[in-house]
Amino acid sequence: MSVLDGDSPPRVVFRDRCSVDLVQHVGGDLEIVRAARVSVGKAGDESPAAVAGLVRYLMKHRHGSPFEHGSLTVRVECPIFVAREWMRHRVGWSYNEVSGRYSQLRPVFWLPPEGRPTVEPPAFKPARPILLDDPVHHGATAAVLRHAYAAAWGAYRALLDAGAAREVARAVLPVGVFTSFVATANPRSLMHFLSLRTRHPAAAAAGYPMAEIAQAADDLERIAAGFWPETFRAFTENGRVAP
Amino acid sequence: MSVLDGDSPPRVVFRDRCSVDLVQHVGGDLEIVRAARVSVGKAGDESPAAVAGLVRYLMKHRHGSPFEHGSLTVRVECPIFVAREWMRHRVGWSYNEVSGRYSQLRPVFWLPPEGRPTVEPPAFKPARPILLDDPVHHGATAAVLRHAYAAAWGAYRALLDAGAAREVARAVLPVGVFTSFVATANPRSLMHFLSLRTRHPAAAAAGYPMAEIAQAADDLERIAAGFWPETFRAFTENGRVAP
Amino acid sequence: MSVLDGDSPPRVVFRDRCSVDLVQHVGGDLEIVRAARVSVGKAGDESPAAVAGLVRYLMKHRHGSPFEHGSLTVRVECPIFVAREWMRHRVGWSYNEVSGRYSQLRPVFWLPPEGRPTVEPPAFKPARPILLDDPVHHGATAAVLRHAYAAAWGAYRALLDAGAAREVARAVLPVGVFTSFVATANPRSLMHFLSLRTRHPAAAAAGYPMAEIAQAADDLERIAAGFWPETFRAFTENGRVAP
Amino acid sequence: MSVLDGDSPPRVVFRDRCSVDLVQHVGGDLEIVRAARVSVGKAGDESPAAVAGLVRYLMKHRHGSPFEHGSLTVRVECPIFVAREWMRHRVGWSYNEVSGRYSQLRPVFWLPPEGRPTVEPPAFKPARPILLDDPVHHGATAAVLRHAYAAAWGAYRALLDAGAAREVARAVLPVGVFTSFVATANPRSLMHFLSLRTRHPAAAAAGYPMAEIAQAADDLERIAAGFWPETFRAFTENGRVAP
Repeated sequence: MSVLDGDSPPRVVFRDRCSVDLVQHVGGDLEIVRAARVSVGKAGDESPAAVAGLVRYLMKHRHGSPFEHGSLTVRVECPIFVAREWMRHRVGWSYNEVSGRYSQLRPVFWLPPEGRPTVEPPAFKPARPILLDDPVHHGATAAVLRHAYAAAWGAYRALLDAGAAREVARAVLPVGVFTSFVATANPRSLMHFLSLRTRHPAAAAAGYPMAEIAQAADDLERIAAGFWPETFRAFTENGRVAP
Repeated sequence: MSVLDGDSPPRVVFRDRCSVDLVQHVGGDLEIVRAARVSVGKAGDESPAAVAGLVRYLMKHRHGSPFEHGSLTVRVECPIFVAREWMRHRVGWSYNEVSGRYSQLRPVFWLPPEGRPTVEPPAFKPARPILLDDPVHHGATAAVLRHAYAAAWGAYRALLDAGAAREVARAVLPVGVFTSFVATANPRSLMHFLSLRTRHPAAAAAGYPMAEIAQAADDLERIAAGFWPETFRAFTENGRVAP
Repeated sequence: MSVLDGDSPPRVVFRDRCSVDLVQHVGGDLEIVRAARVSVGKAGDESPAAVAGLVRYLMKHRHGSPFEHGSLTVRVECPIFVAREWMRHRVGWSYNEVSGRYSQLRPVFWLPPEGRPTVEPPAFKPARPILLDDPVHHGATAAVLRHAYAAAWGAYRALLDAGAAREVARAVLPVGVFTSFVATANPRSLMHFLSLRTRHPAAAAAGYPMAEIAQAADDLERIAAGFWPETFRAFTENGRVAP
Repeated sequence: MSVLDGDSPPRVVFRDRCSVDLVQHVGGDLEIVRAARVSVGKAGDESPAAVAGLVRYLMKHRHGSPFEHGSLTVRVECPIFVAREWMRHRVGWSYNEVSGRYSQLRPVFWLPPEGRPTVEPPAFKPARPILLDDPVHHGATAAVLRHAYAAAWGAYRALLDAGAAREVARAVLPVGVFTSFVATANPRSLMHFLSLRTRHPAAAAAGYPMAEIAQAADDLERIAAGFWPETFRAFTENGRVAP
């Protein structure tokens, strides 16, 4: 169920994945190469091999500005706790999100998918938030989440039904509720986001993104890599550090 | 109670105000005037009257860049729903916030203060979210909020006590829970924020900021106006539009 | 003659206009409206009248963020003194310019077109740089410019021919020499640029952009208004202040 | 001689160095550490060793945002060709520069200092602009530069004396003329600038900044490292990549 479908207050539903859908896009590897060649004042070979070669060169030597001439807009549905991490990315990113002041939110809540580690080990360190998977614990956790979400949703509806303003009633909604936003970025800002929000064996600097934003970031990368294949290949070849 | 005091899990408490506290600051009206005068290549009269006059001139004619040479850092405590609106401000703003992945949050929750309108009128329009005050409704609303917060806090503690990771358990915490962050901005970005997040009779464009962020913005403006008195006076005299 | 055509060192030529040419573009008024409607959580009427109405509403009430979901890339050829003003626009703008270190520049220089005021009146004030037109003075000025450009170009070529590095030789080239760059922006950052760099009777705040950047800005606006007609119409109707 | 001293048109002078002078500053390593610790919700050890350790940790793991809570403002005097490279840095940087439209520029011009390589080798590649030093060539180059500057200055003065507007007359001034600006940045944006504009044996990615901006960047780094000693030490220890 989409976060936004329908008009009547539906029953509570659960999702264990974020969604990232293409809205619009412009530009490709060739346009990046052309922008880079402006600096030497002349056009050049536009064969696939030449384009790939120059993209790799720019990435390796961290010439970042040519990667800004392009644009990708996506529609994201995710829990508020994911949206909050995402929107910390300021440079080269634009956002418009559903408002809990202007609209009534929908009863869509996050549950951890099967196999998603949920247990904090005794040696847990905030700087390296590595978790353990335990099917029994997972089931118990999901049960508590479901119950808490339902209670919160009940309070929200009760407040609205009693005439409370949306902006007041939504104070009881948990950060596990789904929200929806459109986001626009250029390839350079996409790479910066992906360098911090994905887990990838090729990454020079191991990060610890939360599983949910990593799943959304993977989906985003698939879309972006379809439009800028050489760019995102070179990004991974160079340790997944944004130029 | 501060959002961050103490080490043992305390009982649930409620707050009806955000707090904004000074961390550090540099610059004043004089430094803005000096930066502006760089464009004409020479120093000028630095008397209070001359400084005030040039600041007013810059504001009126929307010469914004001189207002960027200065910096204010504050510590903010507010509900998550306020922090989310605040952090939509990207340009000229820097943030560091308490993490629900790295730390256990504290049971501090927002309640609407007395007199804070909470009722949505029948003619409510999202574009002009004007609310009504009703003491009886206010009391009933506060009771539901208190109850919902306590239930959410109970679920959070239960999940943590059962070994759930912080990042999983916090999914049940409502957006009415308090968070804390440090924020740094320059006078120009402060004015842009204040133009959208305060309600002021001198504003050329009437906005409808939520009451809670407007209260925090007023507190922020008091701090800023102490360091840049002519700047913020001229800001108001010119319809509170950021230059 | 283009700044970049050809490979052999040509003779000195003069231009009295900047050029702004479309490279790529995505988005339109409809995409802005759709982004804005995300905040209320549902789609709406997409008829031309409804789109125009909502665009006007967003502009009037200074809801700026929906105008960021779109992108325009252009190729600009202009004197260095114009490029320097242009690149002071940082937010929402990306640039790649021909490099005087990496390439040999071309002998294309700016001359004021006929009718372009060139005389500083006795009552000249830097804050209101209003000039006078005088055909005789114009002719004499153009003659001095031509001569100075030719001398500078001669020194540049002499240095290069003697083996000097491009980055050293170019130190003698005047800011009236043409450069070339690609620039990418979204509709909101375009409007901010146009609000400061055009002269328009509908502008609420009279600015004094230099004639050359104003000409380039007018050309840019024609391109942008072709893709976002309602947006740029509403921009002018609202005093040409960026939302 | 300062770019800005005096009121009467002086004779032509030459400089072979940029200057970077402190205007104002706030913050230090401790404030960065405190901002970082907000994420874990509690204060910590503020001993020098603990501060240094946490700064190193943040740098190594590319936690960049805490390094934004601080501010440094400097006054720079440099040739226009250096200012143009500098002002390509957009994020976290603010500028106000002397205007050739509003003021008459001063006859201060750049000459390469002794030992500064000026010869382009036959195998010159734009992507690796490595030059050779040759004292004889250097002397000849300086002579041509001096002569070309004097001619340009003569044309500028002649145009002004004949009543030409400053904005028109300055078109003949070469990019080797000195300009002056104030610049404000935070430690993170300073590091990004320094990573690209210095030559340093510890740099993980070898860049080829022009000698003049590298000299200014070194001076800037000395000032910044005085206020944030652990930050800039850790920056170098980690390959001089901005976090």
